[in-house]
Amino acid sequence: MRKNIVIDTLMKRRSVRKFRKQIPDDETIETIVRAGQQAPFTSQLYSVIFGTEGDYGFGAPLWFLICIDAYKLERYMRLRHLEIEVDDLSLLLLGIQDASYLAENMVIAAESLGLGSCFLGEGSINPYRVRQLTRLLNLPPRVLPAIELVMGFPDEDRPIRPRYPLAFTLFENGYPELTDTEVIEAMSAMDGAGSEKQTQFAADPSHWTEHIVRKWCQWSPSQEDLLEALSERGFHVGKPTDESKFD
Amino acid sequence: MRKNIVIDTLMKRRSVRKFRKQIPDDETIETIVRAGQQAPFTSQLYSVIFGTEGDYGFGAPLWFLICIDAYKLERYMRLRHLEIEVDDLSLLLLGIQDASYLAENMVIAAESLGLGSCFLGEGSINPYRVRQLTRLLNLPPRVLPAIELVMGFPDEDRPIRPRYPLAFTLFENGYPELTDTEVIEAMSAMDGAGSEKQTQFAADPSHWTEHIVRKWCQWSPSQEDLLEALSERGFHVGKPTDESKFD
Repeated sequence: MRKNIVIDTLMKRRSVRKFRKQIPDDETIETIVRAGQQAPFTSQLYSVIFGTEGDYGFGAPLWFLICIDAYKLERYMRLRHLEIEVDDLSLLLLGIQDASYLAENMVIAAESLGLGSCFLGEGSINPYRVRQLTRLLNLPPRVLPAIELVMGFPDEDRPIRPRYPLAFTLFENGYPELTDTEVIEAMSAMDGAGSEKQTQFAADPSHWTEHIVRKWCQWSPSQEDLLEALSERGFHVGKPTDESKFD
Repeated sequence: MRKNIVIDTLMKRRSVRKFRKQIPDDETIETIVRAGQQAPFTSQLYSVIFGTEGDYGFGAPLWFLICIDAYKLERYMRLRHLEIEVDDLSLLLLGIQDASYLAENMVIAAESLGLGSCFLGEGSINPYRVRQLTRLLNLPPRVLPAIELVMGFPDEDRPIRPRYPLAFTLFENGYPELTDTEVIEAMSAMDGAGSEKQTQFAADPSHWTEHIVRKWCQWSPSQEDLLEALSERGFHVGKPTDESKFD
């Protein structure tokens, strides 16, 4: 494993779920978002909304909402009397990638400045939350609330969480046959570390695989409702492409 | 703008499109992927396949394919006699986020080690390429080739590309009304910088907004074909959720 200050920062990052009240100053917030913007992108299909006055969860003083934003692109194309032709599912997948690259850079920039961060929700786009944030924040069409991220100065020191063994993640030249033994070993690696630490959050149990099993077995959102929420925001998925523009 | 070594690394990163032949050593490759893994995640819904023996574009000696991977999760849940309940669109959106956070950490880790990187394609999931890579790499069901990334030691020194002004990206407490003047200013900021530099790649013209207009107006992939390619990989979007499992 090679080492340097950047890699140390990447490797030591973990979610923080208890924050001090102090609000990071404007320069810090702007630095974090500027560093986020410098991530690679397809079309900068995002906007970032922030707040420092709410109750954002985990006592965090700073909240970011990263939206997939095709509205700004369309505003500019209309000035040239043009319309987007790309289908809405591709646009969503491009947008969530742009948004995620930006978010990850923000997380790393924050870490380097002594701030902790935590993604909110299950990481998924939730129809109820989409509708709520659209209303609260007066979002224009073709802007989809996607990633919520809180930040602040940590008021706790959690252990770094394990990851799958590299052998279960990185494959050369093709996808291998995975034996049950290899699968079990990977899960053990996830469950073993940190099992001596007690945590008070359901989202962060000692046994990761237990948590994941519970999450993916019990969570049965309706795809239909998600498609409907996307459609309300102007992203038409699973429908003929000639309906895929808003006006 | 606050400064430190990490933020400098984030800010100076730009895509490299000309590489030296030298293949990064195994320790470098493993460090990059380990640093990638340490990104936040919902369920580590990814696998990384790499190659150092192909012709990957831009003369790059090292190629990574980051797949959305629900197969490993399902293997492990089956050992517990359980099945994923989450709908396939949510799973895809979660997976592309996991994959993107990992990819961005990889890009930053590489940068810190003196390597350059470039995302391939338009950043989108392309039905033709999905089918081709599935065949070539023997991908199991529920593994979707998503992000292609080449790396190597740079053999060029490009200018850092601009981004939208912060005022066009970061909004406080809600989404503002954007005037045409603000939209035009943002586009000018993108087109202005770098306009004195000639580049030889269609993907990197002097005038960014011209490039983007051309891209999104001319590219008309069929959403139906994309949905079909996703379905072949075991991700059923826009269909009743009771069809959304593979067996």
